[in-house]
Amino acid sequence: MTHADIVGLPVGNTLSEAYRAVRGQSVVLADPLSDADATVQSMDDASPAKWHLAHTTWFFETFILDPNLPEYEIFDDRFAFLFNSYYEGAGPRYARPQRGLLTRPSLHEVLAYRHHVDGAMERLMARTSLPVRDLILLGLHHEQQHQELLLTDILHLFAQNPLKPAYKSSEPLPVDTSPLPELSWSRFEGGIHTIGSPETAFGFDCERPRHETLVHSFELANRTVTNGEWAAFISDGGYSNSALWLSDGFARVQAAPWTAPLYWENRDGEWWSMTLRGAQPVDFDAPVSHVSYYEADAFASWSGARLPTETEWEVAAVTQKIEGNFAGSGRFRPRPQRSARGVQGLFGDVWEWTASAFLPYPGFKPLGGTIGEYNGKFMSGQMVLRGGSCATPDGHVRAGYRNFFQPEKRWQFSGVRLARSI
Amino acid sequence: MTHADIVGLPVGNTLSEAYRAVRGQSVVLADPLSDADATVQSMDDASPAKWHLAHTTWFFETFILDPNLPEYEIFDDRFAFLFNSYYEGAGPRYARPQRGLLTRPSLHEVLAYRHHVDGAMERLMARTSLPVRDLILLGLHHEQQHQELLLTDILHLFAQNPLKPAYKSSEPLPVDTSPLPELSWSRFEGGIHTIGSPETAFGFDCERPRHETLVHSFELANRTVTNGEWAAFISDGGYSNSALWLSDGFARVQAAPWTAPLYWENRDGEWWSMTLRGAQPVDFDAPVSHVSYYEADAFASWSGARLPTETEWEVAAVTQKIEGNFAGSGRFRPRPQRSARGVQGLFGDVWEWTASAFLPYPGFKPLGGTIGEYNGKFMSGQMVLRGGSCATPDGHVRAGYRNFFQPEKRWQFSGVRLARSI
Amino acid sequence: MTHADIVGLPVGNTLSEAYRAVRGQSVVLADPLSDADATVQSMDDASPAKWHLAHTTWFFETFILDPNLPEYEIFDDRFAFLFNSYYEGAGPRYARPQRGLLTRPSLHEVLAYRHHVDGAMERLMARTSLPVRDLILLGLHHEQQHQELLLTDILHLFAQNPLKPAYKSSEPLPVDTSPLPELSWSRFEGGIHTIGSPETAFGFDCERPRHETLVHSFELANRTVTNGEWAAFISDGGYSNSALWLSDGFARVQAAPWTAPLYWENRDGEWWSMTLRGAQPVDFDAPVSHVSYYEADAFASWSGARLPTETEWEVAAVTQKIEGNFAGSGRFRPRPQRSARGVQGLFGDVWEWTASAFLPYPGFKPLGGTIGEYNGKFMSGQMVLRGGSCATPDGHVRAGYRNFFQPEKRWQFSGVRLARSI
Amino acid sequence: MTHADIVGLPVGNTLSEAYRAVRGQSVVLADPLSDADATVQSMDDASPAKWHLAHTTWFFETFILDPNLPEYEIFDDRFAFLFNSYYEGAGPRYARPQRGLLTRPSLHEVLAYRHHVDGAMERLMARTSLPVRDLILLGLHHEQQHQELLLTDILHLFAQNPLKPAYKSSEPLPVDTSPLPELSWSRFEGGIHTIGSPETAFGFDCERPRHETLVHSFELANRTVTNGEWAAFISDGGYSNSALWLSDGFARVQAAPWTAPLYWENRDGEWWSMTLRGAQPVDFDAPVSHVSYYEADAFASWSGARLPTETEWEVAAVTQKIEGNFAGSGRFRPRPQRSARGVQGLFGDVWEWTASAFLPYPGFKPLGGTIGEYNGKFMSGQMVLRGGSCATPDGHVRAGYRNFFQPEKRWQFSGVRLARSI
Repeated sequence: MTHADIVGLPVGNTLSEAYRAVRGQSVVLADPLSDADATVQSMDDASPAKWHLAHTTWFFETFILDPNLPEYEIFDDRFAFLFNSYYEGAGPRYARPQRGLLTRPSLHEVLAYRHHVDGAMERLMARTSLPVRDLILLGLHHEQQHQELLLTDILHLFAQNPLKPAYKSSEPLPVDTSPLPELSWSRFEGGIHTIGSPETAFGFDCERPRHETLVHSFELANRTVTNGEWAAFISDGGYSNSALWLSDGFARVQAAPWTAPLYWENRDGEWWSMTLRGAQPVDFDAPVSHVSYYEADAFASWSGARLPTETEWEVAAVTQKIEGNFAGSGRFRPRPQRSARGVQGLFGDVWEWTASAFLPYPGFKPLGGTIGEYNGKFMSGQMVLRGGSCATPDGHVRAGYRNFFQPEKRWQFSGVRLARSI
Repeated sequence: MTHADIVGLPVGNTLSEAYRAVRGQSVVLADPLSDADATVQSMDDASPAKWHLAHTTWFFETFILDPNLPEYEIFDDRFAFLFNSYYEGAGPRYARPQRGLLTRPSLHEVLAYRHHVDGAMERLMARTSLPVRDLILLGLHHEQQHQELLLTDILHLFAQNPLKPAYKSSEPLPVDTSPLPELSWSRFEGGIHTIGSPETAFGFDCERPRHETLVHSFELANRTVTNGEWAAFISDGGYSNSALWLSDGFARVQAAPWTAPLYWENRDGEWWSMTLRGAQPVDFDAPVSHVSYYEADAFASWSGARLPTETEWEVAAVTQKIEGNFAGSGRFRPRPQRSARGVQGLFGDVWEWTASAFLPYPGFKPLGGTIGEYNGKFMSGQMVLRGGSCATPDGHVRAGYRNFFQPEKRWQFSGVRLARSI
Repeated sequence: MTHADIVGLPVGNTLSEAYRAVRGQSVVLADPLSDADATVQSMDDASPAKWHLAHTTWFFETFILDPNLPEYEIFDDRFAFLFNSYYEGAGPRYARPQRGLLTRPSLHEVLAYRHHVDGAMERLMARTSLPVRDLILLGLHHEQQHQELLLTDILHLFAQNPLKPAYKSSEPLPVDTSPLPELSWSRFEGGIHTIGSPETAFGFDCERPRHETLVHSFELANRTVTNGEWAAFISDGGYSNSALWLSDGFARVQAAPWTAPLYWENRDGEWWSMTLRGAQPVDFDAPVSHVSYYEADAFASWSGARLPTETEWEVAAVTQKIEGNFAGSGRFRPRPQRSARGVQGLFGDVWEWTASAFLPYPGFKPLGGTIGEYNGKFMSGQMVLRGGSCATPDGHVRAGYRNFFQPEKRWQFSGVRLARSI
Repeated sequence: MTHADIVGLPVGNTLSEAYRAVRGQSVVLADPLSDADATVQSMDDASPAKWHLAHTTWFFETFILDPNLPEYEIFDDRFAFLFNSYYEGAGPRYARPQRGLLTRPSLHEVLAYRHHVDGAMERLMARTSLPVRDLILLGLHHEQQHQELLLTDILHLFAQNPLKPAYKSSEPLPVDTSPLPELSWSRFEGGIHTIGSPETAFGFDCERPRHETLVHSFELANRTVTNGEWAAFISDGGYSNSALWLSDGFARVQAAPWTAPLYWENRDGEWWSMTLRGAQPVDFDAPVSHVSYYEADAFASWSGARLPTETEWEVAAVTQKIEGNFAGSGRFRPRPQRSARGVQGLFGDVWEWTASAFLPYPGFKPLGGTIGEYNGKFMSGQMVLRGGSCATPDGHVRAGYRNFFQPEKRWQFSGVRLARSI
């Protein structure tokens, strides 16, 4: 196990250290939650925190321990049915919209389940050979994805509660009075570029194969769209001007109806927003978040620009260091992008909607077996987002990382960066 | 306060004692529940246990303390929005299907809310005059209704969980090997009868006014339909024979689909049922429970009989003592009705569907003010049930008591008693 | 065949003459319709005119000709599947909501089907014995019911069309300038009354058995509620005052939303209504029509009165002659009830919602065989209406006639008469 | 007006001749339809034939005559509301799912509307200048699109009718006994290719701008997948093997449920299919049709191949002559592709699902004004199909033509051509 193998994992240079770091982080994230907080499911798209904690554990038990550690004893053979997410190949499973009905096992029992599996994993890692190491790495990256979902799902749950509970208490943040830079554009030259994650480090199957593609010259905005700019879009009637919208998007706007980003609330003329730190006044300098692809696209039309393709985004991102406002900072809110130099904020703060549908790269091959259901079967009806957010674990994303959601989804920390053709 | 005023309440001969007894019983019933158990809502018809505990408390706070105890301080002014059930006159309220999203306030905080209100109620009761006493009595009967719902809602929640948790652990029950008596019929003579609850004791507005009505001679079965008889109905194809069913009922049977009472499950040819004591083999001697009006009516057709009207039921019930298998026994399951003498089991075990729609009695007047929404506004689309169940608090029902549910509901302890015309 | 047998049928004193009269009337009613008008279904509750014409014919073919006329040849054996309505006992059938997809057979072919069946019926009637005569009578009353539905369904269809086509052209109606009498009340004495249709003339199974019942003294309004009175209810905020409404009703009011009777439209402050004679200004002196039970009940609450029970209505109706504004007048709109004497307008103009659920009379027995599905299986979830409307064929109704619809339905000519207890 | 301008239109070398030819063809296609056939709408996705005839006419009236022919008189000013499809910029419009309720205007009146507009168009074309000529051309291509929809919508309507009416009577077709060639593969070399429709002839905005793209070498099947091959997929359990399906696709398969292409019916073990010539035995040599993108993708997975991207398809198509089995043949069914030489059947027979989402080309600019809603606003949630079908008017498609539908749609003549990477 070389360092390269576990690039992208938060700490340490052995697999075992990485395992402990990632697994421990899930428990830390669940710490502010009561048993009830961890049990309830606020919508079909979301899952209970307890379910995230158990499902990621089931992943190690099912795909790694059970086939590879002969003496391993299943913790509770009824859990496979409860905590399989969508792996058809791993047998029947409890219906997703009912995950919130499982008041038992309790949070306490789920933590015991984690402890049981972690112990066995330590024993396995002490002796394991390389092929299983790849699966363990996959399991850790998988766990990190669920860490982000745990945060976004809790935010959604707490937002439904009129008491507006804070996941983490709000503290005075250091005041940065430097002005926000004007929106400016960076030019990237067209030509044949190679995109996709290299084989030398961890990457999901959908990020591969690395391949050549022809890019036309384009410009990318130096920062993401701010809440202040979004408020101007609202004031200008953006949500009611059908000419700006995709047809499906406008149908959604009218049906919902949508008049602002998710979690925004107008209190006597002032915009407030529900956050992981409770209800807060909207920070107009910070990146807009919790907007759908439809809204992102309409905003871009209103701006006279467009969304970047995922290829364009990646061409820009490979020139940048992977650093930014991730979950590790504990801030859990997007941060104003005040730097005046070049393209900033590609990583962290908010996921950036791209103009690209989530489709296979030329020559794409899913992983074999049940694990092959990981990404490939979702390559329909979803759009690609890039760059990670303030809820993404540090070290989880990379330039080639492809996140994907349906165009109407808003409960992720999803924002907008503009592009334009030349 | 005479004894007559609090007939129907479990203990004691002062209002204050009755208050303590009823309010304390709610807390006892919630005792086996975790914070998560008490928070989750398993369907729109059900409410979380925590909500029942808080809503009944809100009732005392809103209708009694706030208008009558000048120094009373509202515990949390946000709770009125959260815990109003359906009183339009008491202001806006949180949407019913979202009650299960309220992970906060916690069960602990709700118990503190109860404590706060109970203390103030004690102060009020020490000095209060008669008009408020009537409202307090109403509040206690209201609380008892929610005690029953707490039990049936928890059963529904636990039934959704593949782990089939038991609300109360199962213990060996005394074995009664006496044979179940054959179904026999008791004749009741027609004529002008007076029905409705008398004014001399507590009764809901919908049980009044007491009035004369003409009854035609009829016969009533000596006991309710058993699980064994229901199994025969199933074996005979009862659920697929359209000729037995009301049109709406058969549409429901096919859409759901229904093939047995709610909570029944066929395990390798044996019928099991989810109960408050976990999954248990069906007791074929015990009364069938958790059937809808549609099923009750179809079963009656299959039997060559019919359901009794609520008038017929009450004519029979006034001849009986109000005793039976209520919640106080802690059994929480219907009990075989083995007595061979006359009509038995009218009270307790299972609510009995009648052939009567829930409609106003001649001359019905709802209570004045917001409290008038209590029953009258539900007089549409519901059928009357009579007699109480094994989840009904002891002393809550009476011969004139009218329970009511939509004809498709099955999560109450609802069963069937047959009648026939002469 | 005596005259008593065919009381209620429009013309003649032989069965054959009655048959020709009723069957011919259906064709006359369809005359203003194009092939397309007769084909389209505007909602699940409604059926295409062509379907009504074919289904009533299928009734004679299936229940009368096929079992009783040995040489009869089925016109098209595929029609049984297409034109069975809800008789489970008569085999599978085309789904009701898809009736409007049958562009074939054409209206022309359906008329040929009618001709074929009518010829065979004439041969059968020339020789038939009494038992079949009863079925034929039933078939004719059944056809009359569909004649009314044909009219109400066409009105609903045309009301969806922005061109607001008139079923029958509007002509100047004779102007009656006599003032509308004040609302007044007629008293009816309580006691034991006998209700239900006698066996000496035709009646549906649900109108029987005739039986004794105890009625409490009551008062009935001299006329039905007018459009003018309804406009006052609207102006007074009736549709938004929850205190007036049944809970299910207010949910419906808000969801729909309803702000006026069906077909009313506010054009620059003036109320217009869609009618069978096209869009017309609302006649404030005429009876309100196209209101649901929920609206009727709320209006009654607003008026400080209530709806009559069906028993009360019948007690009043047996004192009246069966005459009024029926379909035979060709007016097809309710007419102001200007007479100042006693209770008027019980028959014709609008069906009157009663406070009674549609339930079996004591001792009710449905007809045997498949025809037994006629009424009994609908005895759930519906309210009784009495008296017939301006779309009811002349001679179709009687004092004991029970019509029934779900409480939210509005597309029939349904109105309101008030009652009050004494 | 040069010939190049009207490439793709069926006949003649003047705009006026093209106009008459295209507009006349719509009327010819409607000829077998009764007024009722032309009025009914069988699902939300479909429109009545009468609506297609009127909407295409409204297009000329609204976008061409009204702004450009000063003396033009609107035929009926209520029609704009009825026959606008989705142009938000052209004002409010009648809800799409209710198009089938418009029994008036009749088919006869709609034909009169066409006549009125055609006369005015002739006067306009006699004098018009070039900018309007482009709009007229657009109007004619638009009309051709609706000609195809008229056919597929009628097929869907007739398929719902148990009588299975034939749009066109079935006649003996010339028997071709030559064997179907084995599936073989043609190789296309990678490199930079230019795709998109050139500016020298008519093309929709979404086909432009023509641009360079990098293609990786690939192979394309010589013919489309046949019904025989599809039957093998069914026999092999293709519809129940989740491993073959996209997640959304498998959810749809199970929910519908789907077990064969749309319109297939298993009659005693033999596959029949509803066609424009009535119900017919499935021709196993002919291309499979009426499959969704989900099914196409699953079939490709089952075959060990994949769907081509739209770029790959176009790279192959530009090497072919635009000829095939289009609507002009009057066959209205896909034809076995028996030729043994190279890639065949790219044009006509069935639209071929590609692996490409319908997204803007680099530098895409929609048309200005209301007409700009034509394609751009649908660039979300849809997949591209290429090549035209047996219901596409002759001369309508081209190599760069992009058709698009949601991945679950099946009522178009949509089939499958396989590709594979090298």
